[in-house]
This record gives sequence, C-alpha cells and structure tokens, in this order.
Amino acid sequence: MTDTLPTVRLRPNAEARAIRHGFPWIYADELVTDRRTRALAPGSFARIEDAERQPLALVTVNPASKIIARVMDPDPGAVIGPDWLAARLSCALALRERLYDAPFYRLVHAEADGLPGVVIDRFGETAVIQPNAAWAETHLDALAEALVSVTGVATVVKNGTGRARGLEGLAEETVVLRGTLEGPVPVPMNGAVYMADLMGGQKTGLFYDQRPNHAFVQGLARGARVLDVFSHVGGFALAALAGGAVHALAVDGSAPALALAEQGAAAMGAAERFQTRRGDAFDVMAALAAEGARFDMVICDPPAFAPSKQALEAGLRAYERVARLAAVLVAPGGFLCLCSCSHAADLTRFRTASARGIGKAGRRSQIVFTGFAGPDHPVLPQLAESGYLKALVFRLAP
Amino acid sequence: MTDTLPTVRLRPNAEARAIRHGFPWIYADELVTDRRTRALAPGSFARIEDAERQPLALVTVNPASKIIARVMDPDPGAVIGPDWLAARLSCALALRERLYDAPFYRLVHAEADGLPGVVIDRFGETAVIQPNAAWAETHLDALAEALVSVTGVATVVKNGTGRARGLEGLAEETVVLRGTLEGPVPVPMNGAVYMADLMGGQKTGLFYDQRPNHAFVQGLARGARVLDVFSHVGGFALAALAGGAVHALAVDGSAPALALAEQGAAAMGAAERFQTRRGDAFDVMAALAAEGARFDMVICDPPAFAPSKQALEAGLRAYERVARLAAVLVAPGGFLCLCSCSHAADLTRFRTASARGIGKAGRRSQIVFTGFAGPDHPVLPQLAESGYLKALVFRLAP
Repeated sequence: MTDTLPTVRLRPNAEARAIRHGFPWIYADELVTDRRTRALAPGSFARIEDAERQPLALVTVNPASKIIARVMDPDPGAVIGPDWLAARLSCALALRERLYDAPFYRLVHAEADGLPGVVIDRFGETAVIQPNAAWAETHLDALAEALVSVTGVATVVKNGTGRARGLEGLAEETVVLRGTLEGPVPVPMNGAVYMADLMGGQKTGLFYDQRPNHAFVQGLARGARVLDVFSHVGGFALAALAGGAVHALAVDGSAPALALAEQGAAAMGAAERFQTRRGDAFDVMAALAAEGARFDMVICDPPAFAPSKQALEAGLRAYERVARLAAVLVAPGGFLCLCSCSHAADLTRFRTASARGIGKAGRRSQIVFTGFAGPDHPVLPQLAESGYLKALVFRLAP
Repeated sequence: MTDTLPTVRLRPNAEARAIRHGFPWIYADELVTDRRTRALAPGSFARIEDAERQPLALVTVNPASKIIARVMDPDPGAVIGPDWLAARLSCALALRERLYDAPFYRLVHAEADGLPGVVIDRFGETAVIQPNAAWAETHLDALAEALVSVTGVATVVKNGTGRARGLEGLAEETVVLRGTLEGPVPVPMNGAVYMADLMGGQKTGLFYDQRPNHAFVQGLARGARVLDVFSHVGGFALAALAGGAVHALAVDGSAPALALAEQGAAAMGAAERFQTRRGDAFDVMAALAAEGARFDMVICDPPAFAPSKQALEAGLRAYERVARLAAVLVAPGGFLCLCSCSHAADLTRFRTASARGIGKAGRRSQIVFTGFAGPDHPVLPQLAESGYLKALVFRLAP
C-alpha cells in the first residue's frame, strides 16, 4: 500500500523531539499544510520530516482532523501491508494470551498497540473492530483479513459508532464484515457470564476495561446485599453475584441493557438473587433512600459526566451528587465503589469530588482501592495522563 | 484514661473546616501554644476547640512534633479506653477478614484506621506494633492488651525503628511485649512463602503493601526468566516462581534478606529455580548487561530515592537510571516492573522518569499496569495524595 509515498513536514515550531521519543500525534498547527498536504485523501500514508527535512516516521494523514497525522511506524521506510498489520496484531495477541485463559478481551487498544485509532474487542470467535481513524476505514478490508489470519476468529463486525469517529469525519455504521452473528454472545469474565449485544449495544457491546475493578469488588462481595447503579449489562452486579453476594439490584435507564443483565444472571444460575430496576439513576437512588433501603455494597459507574474540559466543573458536581446519593444507601461499615470514565476529570479531581459527596452525606470513609482500566487496555507512557477510567472503593465508617 | 482532659485551641488562621471534614492533623503553627499546652506530656489527650471556642474533636498532643495534634475521635466527648481501642481494632479487623482468607496482613494502617500513627502488621499468631506517635508509646500496654483480646494473637512485638519515630522524639527499641517468638515466621502470600524476620528485619519484617503488584507480575510469569532487583526477602521473585516462572534471580545488598529469600524458595519447593546475587543493584545490573543476560521480566523495587521534597530531583534521576539499566536487560516483548515508595515522587513524576529511562535505553514501551499499596493499607481521602507506593508494569517492544 505504501510504494511511492508523499512527504509532509513539521513546522519549525513543532516538537520533533516528542515524535522521536514516541509521542504519536501531530496536531494541525504543527504541520506545514500546503495545498498538496491539504489535498491528501483522509487516511493516506506519508513520510514525515522535521523542519530540517530529516526523516522522522511513517504517518497517516487526515487533513480533516485536528490530529492531522498519527505515527504508524517510527521507521520512515516501513511498508504498511498485510505483513505489517499481521505483526502488530500478533504482538497485541501475545500480550492478551499471556494475560487471559480465554479469548475474551480488548485485543487492540489503538496507539498503545501500534494501530492508531483502532480498537478491536474479541468475544471468543467474534471480533469487533472500531475503526476510529481514517486510515483504518480505508484499509478496513486488509485489517479484517489480517485479524482473521492472526487470531482465527470466524466473525468480524465493524462497529462504527461513537464520538471519536465524528472527530475524524467518519460516518456511523455497524455491519458484519466476515462470517455471521446471531444474537448476544455470552462472555465469561471473573466467573460471571455477561451477554454482549455486538450489533446494537453501546461501543463494542461490553466493557472489558472494568475487569480488575469488578474483580476487586467481587472479592468483598461474599454475603453482601449489592446495589449496582448505572449497571449497563450488569458488570459489577453479576461479578458480585459470582463472588457470593446474597442479592444484587441493578439500576439502569436502558431496558435492553437490563434485559441482557437478566439473561446473564440466568446463564450463571443466579437469577433468583438478581433484580433490576429501570429508571433515572438519580431518581432511583433518592427513592431507595426514601424507602430506607440499605446495601452492604453500592457501585456507581456512570457515563462520562466530564467528557471534555468545558464540561469539567458540571461533571465534578455530578460526581459529587452521585457520591452523596449513593453514600446514604451504604450500610454501616459497607463499601462504596465510584467510577469515572471522564478524560477531563483526573484521579485527584474525581477523588476529591467523591470524598466531598460522601462527607455531605454525613459519612466518614477510608479509601481501600484505586483502580484503572485493565491490562488489555495498555497506554503509551506519552499519553498516560489521559488514562480515562478510574475506580475508587471507599469503606464507610460504621 | 480521659477523665478530666485539658483543652487546646486552634489559632484564628487555622482551618477548622478541614478538621470537621476529617483532616486528621493539626500543625504546630495552627495551635495556640501557650505555656500550658507546651507543658503537656507528649501523647496527652485533649479536647480541641476552634478559635471561637466551639468543640471540634478529641486529639492527642505532642508538643515535640511538627504535627502537634492528631485527631483521635471526631467526638470531643469520646473516652479513649479499652473499649475505644477494641472498637477501632475490631473495625480494622473486619475489613481484613473480608479481604483475606488467612491472617497475614497489615491490620492497622494508622490514621486511615482511626489509630493515629499506629501501624500493626499481623503474621498469623504474631502481631508487630509500630507505635509511631507518642500516645501509642505511652498507651502501648493497653494497645497490646486490646490487640490480644480482639484478634487472639499469642505474641505481640513492639518494633520501634524507622524515621517516623524520630520525628515524634521517640527512641528506637524492638522488643517482645507478649508471648514468645522464635526465628523467622513463614508467611503465605499469593501462593508463595516468605520468611519474615520480625525482630531484625526492615520495618515489621515484611512488606504486605506490594501484594496486589506481586499478584499482577505473577500473572505474567508462566515460563518466564525473572530478575528481581532490590529483592529484599524475594517479594516479586518468589511470587513469580509461584506463578510458574522457570527461573528467578534475586539481587539485593543485604545478605540476611537474601538468606531469608532462599529459605522462602526452599519452603515453596522452588529452590532449584531460584538464585541470589548479593551486591549493589546498579553494579549488578551493569554487570548482567555486560554478560549479555536477558530476562523475560525484570522488577526493580528500590528503597525510597525521593523520601523528601529536598531529595526529589536527585531521586527522580535515580529512578530514571534504574529504568535505563533495567530496560537493557529485558528481552524483546518482555516486561519491566518499576516501583517507587517515595512520597515526594508522585505517580506522574515517577512515570515520566521511568519512561525517560526506558527511552534512553533505546526501547519503546506500553504501560499495562499501574498499582498502589494493597487494600490492607487504606488511606484517608484527605491524605490520599500522599499515597506512597506506586508500581508500573511496562511491556517493552519486541
């Protein structure tokens, strides 16, 4: 695919050193955007030079994106073909096979796995690709081909939803690229069973990122009454049931998500210990408090309240409110797990907002656990600050 | 013990609100230190008022310490007697019994467990108290009594070493307070066996804080050749052997620590897969590099290079140097686990120094894991910034 490549060049003000040290992105104001560069088709490959015309790397260019170029390979002479794709996928696969006994994991986590903008989740014999950068969209067929050949999956789904694609100027579309798919896929994780709707669900249908945080909560769950708010398909609730919780109540606004949670509980043989309640999470928490309901463990894993810097202050207030409403529902000596998947709210800010909410509920606490996304979601050291997922487990005083 | 207590008072400039919200410390410049207060015996209990003479809390006062008062109880009317001590210990014990199957853990983690300045580690039937605040020294007998009655341990050791005691003006002394103790105690953790020298070792003889980080490394260890630098009694090395490592080499400057590591390996039946090398860690890493040695996994868990703000810059350079020397020894596609127990080097600074060292070794990396101290080391939300232990696991590119 990369026989005679165009060349693009950094402006003199741009930080070539960062690129040489592994920073993977070039912003639009760092690149000489002459007519030729602006005319490149989104997803084109190019060789990038520094301002002194020294070769830097092989990049993919998208003139429509604020991230105008992404490093594909530090070697400017690299050839992005089937072998290159297979090598990257094999390297990603080797990590996951070392981490997990069963083929259920995030296989590719974009830049950190050397495939810029590409997310691939694996659900046994099915893989779901999110091609969130233009190059992946234009080379989707080669990517799917390499994926089948490296992993042996039978079915490949393209999931074209989500905010990232809009930023790259890509349209929404979810479609089966290879093989066939019928109904939700059962996913074993932490001894629980989750039902993943790979065609109609949020993102790729299941969130693998919470796996270690589910596991920690599970380790506290024996004999506990558990409330899982913003439960989606039951991530924390079913993990707690698998860990010996006597009862779990899942609350979510989505009826399809709760239906999948119920199917998961049934598949685990835990249906009689599991209940769901559909509604606005804030309303349901207030109603439970009014009913005098108390739980040994409450988990809140809301959607990103602070997805951008602009939304940060309002987002932190929302996290505080969640903490306050949830703390009221925790029995003396019980546990409260609060999660944030907001890029903009870093760990310190999120922890402070959470602690303030707990304090406003009149409760004292100790933090027993701080968790992030699991190891199948690696991060580049150069982008580690943006680690989006945080999970805090508080124990509330008796 | 608290019949007719003296009263101490905050200065008008002091933040009474922080105390009301659970911040546990009052610094010397925040308290009215009249002659009466200065004359209080170190470790005295007192009622503290805000500048408007509103009661705030029950505190312990040490006029000799920069932290002149520590909150014992938010209730100014609390009585610090046997029942109070037993209640705090029972609350701490309940958390650990929920977390662990066997009685080997940090039982009390100071302020976060409501016992200011007191650390208690449990090794089965033996408990080791570090009374690092004056009140604990003066009430040591009552504390030991409550400990025996709540946990049923047969032996109680007082470990009076470490920097914290000096700051409180306390002398060094390690002594058996209750029961008897003979030789090192075998400690099961993550399927490994560690030998803890409770009388002569560093701190209480074993570091429980790394347990979850040991566990993560263990999950990657099957079939691996492992190098554990700054190994102490073999924390990471023995965990890796228990996880199926084919070989582990432990490097440390302390012959007694390495002897305990060897005893641990023998107790696990893994002696023939385990080797030790005594020497300066930097020298040994350089020598191994010169020998062309390569490992699938290298772990470096050095002593605190940046124990204070003054030592921060030099400490970060030392962490960078460790990362650089260690990265050279990691086989293509292998793992590098780097730890810091420096308060002053926060996660971001430590990660940056580590990544720079790896880069200087000519290696590219992804971060697969960020870990902290285990859940038997809870933190107060108000002191969470000072979380001292960080563990990062990098995977180095093939």
